[in-house]
Amino acid sequence: MKLLEERIIKDGVFLGNDILKVDNFLNHQIDVALLDKMGAEWARLYEGEKITKILTIEASGIGIACIAARHFGSCPVLFAKKSKSSNIGDDFYTAKAYSFTHGNVNDIVVSKKYLGKGDRVLIIDDFLANGEALLALTSICNKAGAEIAGVGIAVEKWYQGGGDKIRDMGIRVESLAKIKKMEDGRIEFC
Amino acid sequence: MKLLEERIIKDGVFLGNDILKVDNFLNHQIDVALLDKMGAEWARLYEGEKITKILTIEASGIGIACIAARHFGSCPVLFAKKSKSSNIGDDFYTAKAYSFTHGNVNDIVVSKKYLGKGDRVLIIDDFLANGEALLALTSICNKAGAEIAGVGIAVEKWYQGGGDKIRDMGIRVESLAKIKKMEDGRIEFC
Repeated sequence: MKLLEERIIKDGVFLGNDILKVDNFLNHQIDVALLDKMGAEWARLYEGEKITKILTIEASGIGIACIAARHFGSCPVLFAKKSKSSNIGDDFYTAKAYSFTHGNVNDIVVSKKYLGKGDRVLIIDDFLANGEALLALTSICNKAGAEIAGVGIAVEKWYQGGGDKIRDMGIRVESLAKIKKMEDGRIEFC
Repeated sequence: MKLLEERIIKDGVFLGNDILKVDNFLNHQIDVALLDKMGAEWARLYEGEKITKILTIEASGIGIACIAARHFGSCPVLFAKKSKSSNIGDDFYTAKAYSFTHGNVNDIVVSKKYLGKGDRVLIIDDFLANGEALLALTSICNKAGAEIAGVGIAVEKWYQGGGDKIRDMGIRVESLAKIKKMEDGRIEFC
């Protein structure tokens, strides 16, 4: 999606250690008009897929998912929570996700009440790098017996391999900006 | 707002210890169509207030704020982050907020880049009880020199006093559902 690529070049900040900051428009301050165009693009890509629910993970995915949902007939959004405790009883589907950013493991949880057989899910998130969070979300869908129609990602750091790992599982992944490499503060899209 | 009150009665779950669960439609699964009507109502209440930015706090506030922003000319949304460390350098405004739910203190942080003089802020959040999170957000606005036009809350537990504490500071608070008391699983609105 040209618009998002241009915005990353204009407002993204490249730090060392593979870090691209987009907190100007995506995950701290949020450009809602941009999110709306991103939602329209996923709706175009997933037209006819009969999505019943959008699944995301706190925190940065929530705004993107809510605005996108308006383009999918205002279907419900469900956000997985990062739990401090893995001992939360039987009412939740859980999965573990290692965070490379924070160097810790999160237990992510989704209430069994809100995901199940008959759901056709679009998973949405802001970033896809190593794919750990996304693997955890797909695992939760599998445990719930929900069908995964596909994934919508704002920014995929393709060279980190997470996206292709998910695609190799037969899951459709549509990333609106797909970064081939970042070097010396320069960015190259796929 | 009648619609939200009716939804709380229909889908809210009352647990002991003053806890009202609205994770069916507000802070786990999200009814985006309801959020859209809530956003329209705040826009009606704050008409002419020339809001330049909507400020909220992760995680549950983000979806509500993003959908509401569409009714304020798609003004930017800014969400405060809960930081694990108070030692985050000079680039952030910080404030402390005690969480009664989790029994801990969060340092909440907002980048100095995205809030400042000339901003006229609407603060939005899902719940208002003791007012700790809201006080922290107002403190951050004050540190930034930003003007607070008012506050938009989905569910205010009025009997816990946080809302009136903020109103006594001269800040306008518009809660769409204002709970006078909860007793024996019954709820009474103001």
